[in-house]
Amino acid sequence: MAPLRITVWNEFRHEQQNPDVRRIYPDGIHQAIADGLTQELGDRISVRCATLDQPDHGLTEDALAQTDVLFWWGHMAHGDVRDDVVDRIHQRCLAGMGLIALHSAHYSKIFTRLMGTSCSLRWREAGERERIWIVDPSHPIVNGLDCESFDLPHAEMYGEFFDIPQPESLVLLSWFQGGEVFRSGCTFKRGKGKIFYFRPGHETYPIYYHAKIRKILANSAVWAAPTGAVYHTDSRHIPEFDT
Amino acid sequence: MAPLRITVWNEFRHEQQNPDVRRIYPDGIHQAIADGLTQELGDRISVRCATLDQPDHGLTEDALAQTDVLFWWGHMAHGDVRDDVVDRIHQRCLAGMGLIALHSAHYSKIFTRLMGTSCSLRWREAGERERIWIVDPSHPIVNGLDCESFDLPHAEMYGEFFDIPQPESLVLLSWFQGGEVFRSGCTFKRGKGKIFYFRPGHETYPIYYHAKIRKILANSAVWAAPTGAVYHTDSRHIPEFDT
Amino acid sequence: MAPLRITVWNEFRHEQQNPDVRRIYPDGIHQAIADGLTQELGDRISVRCATLDQPDHGLTEDALAQTDVLFWWGHMAHGDVRDDVVDRIHQRCLAGMGLIALHSAHYSKIFTRLMGTSCSLRWREAGERERIWIVDPSHPIVNGLDCESFDLPHAEMYGEFFDIPQPESLVLLSWFQGGEVFRSGCTFKRGKGKIFYFRPGHETYPIYYHAKIRKILANSAVWAAPTGAVYHTDSRHIPEFDT
Amino acid sequence: MAPLRITVWNEFRHEQQNPDVRRIYPDGIHQAIADGLTQELGDRISVRCATLDQPDHGLTEDALAQTDVLFWWGHMAHGDVRDDVVDRIHQRCLAGMGLIALHSAHYSKIFTRLMGTSCSLRWREAGERERIWIVDPSHPIVNGLDCESFDLPHAEMYGEFFDIPQPESLVLLSWFQGGEVFRSGCTFKRGKGKIFYFRPGHETYPIYYHAKIRKILANSAVWAAPTGAVYHTDSRHIPEFDT
Repeated sequence: MAPLRITVWNEFRHEQQNPDVRRIYPDGIHQAIADGLTQELGDRISVRCATLDQPDHGLTEDALAQTDVLFWWGHMAHGDVRDDVVDRIHQRCLAGMGLIALHSAHYSKIFTRLMGTSCSLRWREAGERERIWIVDPSHPIVNGLDCESFDLPHAEMYGEFFDIPQPESLVLLSWFQGGEVFRSGCTFKRGKGKIFYFRPGHETYPIYYHAKIRKILANSAVWAAPTGAVYHTDSRHIPEFDT
Repeated sequence: MAPLRITVWNEFRHEQQNPDVRRIYPDGIHQAIADGLTQELGDRISVRCATLDQPDHGLTEDALAQTDVLFWWGHMAHGDVRDDVVDRIHQRCLAGMGLIALHSAHYSKIFTRLMGTSCSLRWREAGERERIWIVDPSHPIVNGLDCESFDLPHAEMYGEFFDIPQPESLVLLSWFQGGEVFRSGCTFKRGKGKIFYFRPGHETYPIYYHAKIRKILANSAVWAAPTGAVYHTDSRHIPEFDT
Repeated sequence: MAPLRITVWNEFRHEQQNPDVRRIYPDGIHQAIADGLTQELGDRISVRCATLDQPDHGLTEDALAQTDVLFWWGHMAHGDVRDDVVDRIHQRCLAGMGLIALHSAHYSKIFTRLMGTSCSLRWREAGERERIWIVDPSHPIVNGLDCESFDLPHAEMYGEFFDIPQPESLVLLSWFQGGEVFRSGCTFKRGKGKIFYFRPGHETYPIYYHAKIRKILANSAVWAAPTGAVYHTDSRHIPEFDT
Repeated sequence: MAPLRITVWNEFRHEQQNPDVRRIYPDGIHQAIADGLTQELGDRISVRCATLDQPDHGLTEDALAQTDVLFWWGHMAHGDVRDDVVDRIHQRCLAGMGLIALHSAHYSKIFTRLMGTSCSLRWREAGERERIWIVDPSHPIVNGLDCESFDLPHAEMYGEFFDIPQPESLVLLSWFQGGEVFRSGCTFKRGKGKIFYFRPGHETYPIYYHAKIRKILANSAVWAAPTGAVYHTDSRHIPEFDT
């Protein structure tokens, strides 16, 4: 079977501007994510990375055409992503490319466009404890996790109300030490594209090295791979009775 | 109880350009819809109409602020709707205004923006028979209908695949003489706004005079009325533990 | 409009066996719930109560035929509910009667039969704090709540994984001091019957006197009232083409 | 990877009593289904068959423990299936075994128990044409189908209202020549078990030899295979704070 073609996209600004972030992710968040995917999936995948400051943000027509699943990490520079590139990603999603929207990507142009809502939420940076509960235990995205929940000792808090459309599957719920809850793992479909929003991952914590986070990222790539039947993306005029 | 404030919006172009349409809807599709709502709901509602060629398309900030539920009929001139007005409608939907998207409004700017998909479909104009089946019989939108299905003797066909996100409730399914099926009554939520897509209603058939169609339109207005709890549309920074 | 006919059913054993419970609910949990409903809804409803030790558990064919919405509280004596009475309730639910399953009713015969799952969960009695978050802010069940969340200072904990089918709407999520989360307000439909599972309500805490709990109970009664179209509960043989 | 262990269960009565059915399915419907699965999936699966008149209906504790996915075909003898065997199948489903309920299995004890509803529907035997439309084109169950719809030239009609809970995914919709529509491919989850209801398959038509039907059956087996995280089927008392 041909390997699943994954592109990990990262804004890649925090790492260059903030030594604390660079210490955690010396080669960028994208590299840590790519390494985790490779560690879990080996030669079942081929991974490339792309970043905001590359030409076309590293997401040319051709690059997207060669991508089965796109991981997206952005935070401080959502506004710098070009609208025509967002159009292009949007079309590819509808045509079947999977999208894994990570953490602050809740506010990215591509995610809010696919959702149709504000995607706003509560947030707090207090390095508090997060406990992630599995509430859809037979979902492929939690395949092989040997637990009912697991803890991240220090996390940025995201809390409800999270303004998203009702997820198709609600896979993970977070508990925060400070009193909030959050729908942390949510699946959606738009056109033929499968979408997974996955909350963990603030740039100031080494979350993308966590074994269970890596397992979930790998599972989500496999789950979001293009599948299904032939279909048409354009409206189709049918001149005659077809029966 | 204060009356529900409804705005019926119509593109109002076909009626002015095509004598066949004007014969069916001499005062415009909007007036036929407004009359049906008044007939069903009387003084439980106050209805006003708005059309594309009015200033601000009849949808100023103030007009929208005074609207609880917005009906939308558009077809040939989706592209003429100003983007800033669409922004305004979008914000009002997320804040709780109901939206009833009628027939060819599947391709309107406001509906596709709320859905995040292409909203494409198959279509055919052959004046064929449509049979509408109720598949969520306890939904408030079909309240009081004394049937399992009902027929429209002549209709434009819309067929699957209809490229929308999975509806929250699938209320109505259409059967077409020529061999197609369609998800004809679908509910969604975006932010606090309730949305109902309702397929019937081509401009060349007197569909908005049909008793059961009028009943469904009235029910959908009542269902889509703003309800619920206080909530915040913006992201909220929570500086301290709250417990 | 004819008043909504509500039956509040209570097992009514704890109150008779345990003085601590009797101190909180001297006339039984059912009476506190009935009082709350009357306080909120006045003459829009008529309420009667029924308990396990009455003949037919107070739920004769006739009593159920006169019930639009049934509230159910049970805990220690689920097994004492007669199967033929459960059959009868089940049929009434499918035919359109609303059901509000409270707290430990997750394990009642009627609720597990409607769900088809074990309805098991984690639980702990530590009098800990529960915070209930609204995650579907435009749902009629949270109508008029002027908050994003509210606290119960002392509650029994119920935690995930809660083995239920995916809810139609997930309205409320609970956070618990001890580290758990729970889907505390969930809606379902079975046949024409609307079902609301609502977690709060242990017998050793005065939870059914809480203003917001009472508001939610009243809203849920209104939401669960029978609505919709005529439909057939039996399989129907259609001998001929119908077109 | 160890092969997926499939059990195809058939009531196997029509074939023995009715020469017309025997002519179409000389070795039983189960054998035709098993052959189709083997044709599509080869050594990725191991298939065994079981029938009603075997001891324990061929579904001993051990047989079920060795089954990853159970196909179920029953029609005239639903009442002859022993309740204790149904209990056993139910427990296995909740624990993660997939279930593919075929055609008239909508009325089987195991399916109605998992659904909690009557599962009633309209039906007609007129040998009419059925057209099956794909309405969730990226679902794994329609993987590789090179069409938007396909026809069965002669089928028994099943029509709405089909009294099931709202499916998690609605994958297929049927159009019938005589004027009805039907939700023909529906997924559900109960506990950890994935369930697919698939309408086609009356005993008097050679439907289980149809290439696209076989493709869908094979896809559904792969989709329904047990996956996911560890979880507990019993309620769990948690004595202490866990944080």
